[in-house]
Amino acid sequence: MKIGFIGLGSMGLPMAQNLLNAGYPLRVYNRTRAKAETLATDQVTVADSPADVAAQVDVLITMLSRDEALEEVLFAESQGAYDALPQGAVHLSMSTISPDLSRRLAEKHAAKGQQYVAAPVFGRPDVAEKAALKLAVAGPKAVAERLSPIFDAVGAAWDYVGEEAWQANLVKIAGNFVIASMMETLGEAFALVGKAGVDPKQFLEIVNGRVMQSPVYQTYGNQMLEERFQPAGFATDLGLKDMTLVQRAAQQWQVPMPFGSVLRDQMATLVNRYGKGYDWSALAKLAHDQAQPHHES
Amino acid sequence: MKIGFIGLGSMGLPMAQNLLNAGYPLRVYNRTRAKAETLATDQVTVADSPADVAAQVDVLITMLSRDEALEEVLFAESQGAYDALPQGAVHLSMSTISPDLSRRLAEKHAAKGQQYVAAPVFGRPDVAEKAALKLAVAGPKAVAERLSPIFDAVGAAWDYVGEEAWQANLVKIAGNFVIASMMETLGEAFALVGKAGVDPKQFLEIVNGRVMQSPVYQTYGNQMLEERFQPAGFATDLGLKDMTLVQRAAQQWQVPMPFGSVLRDQMATLVNRYGKGYDWSALAKLAHDQAQPHHES
Amino acid sequence: MKIGFIGLGSMGLPMAQNLLNAGYPLRVYNRTRAKAETLATDQVTVADSPADVAAQVDVLITMLSRDEALEEVLFAESQGAYDALPQGAVHLSMSTISPDLSRRLAEKHAAKGQQYVAAPVFGRPDVAEKAALKLAVAGPKAVAERLSPIFDAVGAAWDYVGEEAWQANLVKIAGNFVIASMMETLGEAFALVGKAGVDPKQFLEIVNGRVMQSPVYQTYGNQMLEERFQPAGFATDLGLKDMTLVQRAAQQWQVPMPFGSVLRDQMATLVNRYGKGYDWSALAKLAHDQAQPHHES
Amino acid sequence: MKIGFIGLGSMGLPMAQNLLNAGYPLRVYNRTRAKAETLATDQVTVADSPADVAAQVDVLITMLSRDEALEEVLFAESQGAYDALPQGAVHLSMSTISPDLSRRLAEKHAAKGQQYVAAPVFGRPDVAEKAALKLAVAGPKAVAERLSPIFDAVGAAWDYVGEEAWQANLVKIAGNFVIASMMETLGEAFALVGKAGVDPKQFLEIVNGRVMQSPVYQTYGNQMLEERFQPAGFATDLGLKDMTLVQRAAQQWQVPMPFGSVLRDQMATLVNRYGKGYDWSALAKLAHDQAQPHHES
Repeated sequence: MKIGFIGLGSMGLPMAQNLLNAGYPLRVYNRTRAKAETLATDQVTVADSPADVAAQVDVLITMLSRDEALEEVLFAESQGAYDALPQGAVHLSMSTISPDLSRRLAEKHAAKGQQYVAAPVFGRPDVAEKAALKLAVAGPKAVAERLSPIFDAVGAAWDYVGEEAWQANLVKIAGNFVIASMMETLGEAFALVGKAGVDPKQFLEIVNGRVMQSPVYQTYGNQMLEERFQPAGFATDLGLKDMTLVQRAAQQWQVPMPFGSVLRDQMATLVNRYGKGYDWSALAKLAHDQAQPHHES
Repeated sequence: MKIGFIGLGSMGLPMAQNLLNAGYPLRVYNRTRAKAETLATDQVTVADSPADVAAQVDVLITMLSRDEALEEVLFAESQGAYDALPQGAVHLSMSTISPDLSRRLAEKHAAKGQQYVAAPVFGRPDVAEKAALKLAVAGPKAVAERLSPIFDAVGAAWDYVGEEAWQANLVKIAGNFVIASMMETLGEAFALVGKAGVDPKQFLEIVNGRVMQSPVYQTYGNQMLEERFQPAGFATDLGLKDMTLVQRAAQQWQVPMPFGSVLRDQMATLVNRYGKGYDWSALAKLAHDQAQPHHES
Repeated sequence: MKIGFIGLGSMGLPMAQNLLNAGYPLRVYNRTRAKAETLATDQVTVADSPADVAAQVDVLITMLSRDEALEEVLFAESQGAYDALPQGAVHLSMSTISPDLSRRLAEKHAAKGQQYVAAPVFGRPDVAEKAALKLAVAGPKAVAERLSPIFDAVGAAWDYVGEEAWQANLVKIAGNFVIASMMETLGEAFALVGKAGVDPKQFLEIVNGRVMQSPVYQTYGNQMLEERFQPAGFATDLGLKDMTLVQRAAQQWQVPMPFGSVLRDQMATLVNRYGKGYDWSALAKLAHDQAQPHHES
Repeated sequence: MKIGFIGLGSMGLPMAQNLLNAGYPLRVYNRTRAKAETLATDQVTVADSPADVAAQVDVLITMLSRDEALEEVLFAESQGAYDALPQGAVHLSMSTISPDLSRRLAEKHAAKGQQYVAAPVFGRPDVAEKAALKLAVAGPKAVAERLSPIFDAVGAAWDYVGEEAWQANLVKIAGNFVIASMMETLGEAFALVGKAGVDPKQFLEIVNGRVMQSPVYQTYGNQMLEERFQPAGFATDLGLKDMTLVQRAAQQWQVPMPFGSVLRDQMATLVNRYGKGYDWSALAKLAHDQAQPHHES
């Protein structure tokens, strides 16, 4: 199985490394070539264009954080991956893109006799490094199963969602909505108890330790309490992108989502106030700052 | 240690039973006397008034679901518990009351040489039955420690929060805010994925099973998926009461809490639409109903 | 000036009639041909396709309520208006479309040497009938000024916003956001005072009569008080469309808009609960219904 | 008619002055005595305590901006106005207090054979100076009518709401909710159109000039556009107080008010960020600041 990999960001790089570790030679492309070269062993071929990767692989993995970037890589006027990908080859889309784009890609690939599977991942860069990501996989079942060695190489578990690739993308963005919601919740609770005079750390220990018992509250809660918002594991602007995707899905299916709306608004404020250098858990910093008397002028 | 118990509702009754099981005779009072009599063994004395309980005990436990009910029991014009409670005796307040009332009670009891400890509980009636509640305890430390056999009799774990009793009440309502927030989050996510065509059950399995791993999401998620909203383990009107307490705390300490605000508004809609007979997890029913085309007239 | 008119809905029909009244013969197209024929005098030619209108006019007016409908009319695979519109002719887009589509249309028309002006209108069907609409006009100034006899024929006033056509569309959707916001505000205020025991009618008289003094509060307020939600002057689904456009603009420019978010969510609930047959002022019915005890099962 | 006046703040002072101008001698009290002395002509007697005012008047006007301040003046342990006010005399409460307190005051005054009328005012200090306030009046009708010369001396118009004094207070806070909602709406709309590249001033001219036509949008809109937020005509902390009263009324009557909730949260952020020195129209500054990239650290 010849594998191509496009998109070597903070998630893509460790994922590609784990594929190498699992014994798969890779043909890779990254807009910033230097990043691709950090991988370079004799098992890695750094290609000059998306087309140059796509033309020679059985499975083309994309890990690009935005719809626009993926569309550019696939459909660029020259050297796009879409036209180059052989009939029968698989495009395995692993980043968090909109269900809408995913649905369009499924159609476009089908029209060319190419396969398309979506397998977005849960987990941050440190989890990617440990090959411990959790994957939500959707697309034609037989194809998905054939890809399982790839899933095993980068992740600790994968779940098959359904025949329609976009379903995995919806599960992923709805999952990120849940996580963002947990962070906003902790942020507000910490701001309240802290201002009133109860130690937020103790609050977290009692309430998560005794009741919720979720590692997500634990990890993010500690990050918030220790104000470790930089460097970003998952940056504010990606958080804003995902909450925008949630809101767009809510628009598309006409579902009222008041929490989803609050999250998009908060995330926009977060990006505007603190910039892209912060982790999205800085939602707690925002909640704290809005609650404290500052008297800015 | 002679113990009095006032408030034998769906939580109070199993708690009182567990105290009996642990070997403590009880002097009890309940507005609806019949309920008190379901407990009656020779270890139970059913009293005629709050004063009649308070006058003869070392520890007076109250488990009344609303501030107003507790104030009535304590400060009724005749036969209130407050005037009857002996100097040195302890009022152990275990229900979810406002931090504000708790602060006032601490002052009032101190003024009479009485002790006051707050120990609100996390857990629903089935958890109370198993003596598996989690307690947040605050008030004078020495007194709290003296009460530990009581905590052990009704609960699986207790955490000491601080010297000020109201701190435990704040932890409790902020904890309920987190739980309500989890339910609203699931409700919205289920409404979205369900309307789009992904099975919410599968969504829960993937997202909670792989990522959040919280028993709270598990329990409430299943309850929502199976639409088990009646009978209520924790009724909508109590949920509204608690979210109102959260909002009032946010008002008192001037903390913006957009999720807290959404929750109060949703809970009010919930009570108005479905009435008090539903469990507060019917937040998911509300989210679902608002998302589905009904065309009511 | 030969004028074509596409889109004879509840707004387009009276606007076309007013152009006829002002002495302009019209070439018209409507998907449902019967509607076009209600106009038929010897001054009206009912065309068979968008292209058939566009090919023979100096100014092509479109009044279609959704982006998708306008794109279909312009870019349909066969008989679309875009390819047929002569060089130098003007596309005058008068419906409420997204700033985004308007920007793309400006580029596309420019690429073909066609002119493009946006002139969305404020006012409901009864106002359109009286030729009393208010227009926000944007696009090349000289072209806009040449169109002023058209503006005068259908409206009572027009304001020039700027050289970029999309600017008028942004003014229009932000204006609709203000109007929707006024309705939600009245709806919530009526629900509150009414439930507490103050006559909402009296409230409106005092507060709008003495303070706000806005005809918008007056008109919508009375409509709400008299529960005149059917037939719809401006239907819930169009309200949802517009609030979705506002939210998308807020997403595009990364602007937090908490009121905008509430409105999209409320409007989605409105459409889901009551359907498309209601006027968007039924926001007040929603606010009222959510506040009243119903105990639906 | 002997009149007493307690509370000479930025509203009370011009109101008292207008009563003097209308020929009424006044007995006044203010916590900061110096302020009272700015009024001193031979028609003014500056009293030493609330009781000292109340004991000698037919009508006691209170103009204190918070419930707590009014309760202190009336029920202070020594020298409170309540015990001193003669039987048959009227307490005319003109500030924005909670409907709840107003209801309690009606009961308490009735218990002592005193009269109680609520007449909260719409208008800012400059309007108060011109004796152009608008009053919502409630309480026993005959008493209210007897007070009409007072209403005429300080205001341009008054409306009788009902027999229950608290009804006027509810109208007042619901009215302030409408005004705050208008400001938030403009603030969000300005932030959006401004960031996108449309002049907010032009937006206001078109949208308010042509459609809403409200002097409230005009006045506040200009204030926002010229960034005249200091000195405060109506300070942020009073805005927060009023939005808190609205939220409490919504809690009391179990009415969901999503806009009301957003406003309380925004106002809390406003007070925390900019302090009490700003006008509540700085909601627009907040909306603008949250939308602009700052990259604070």
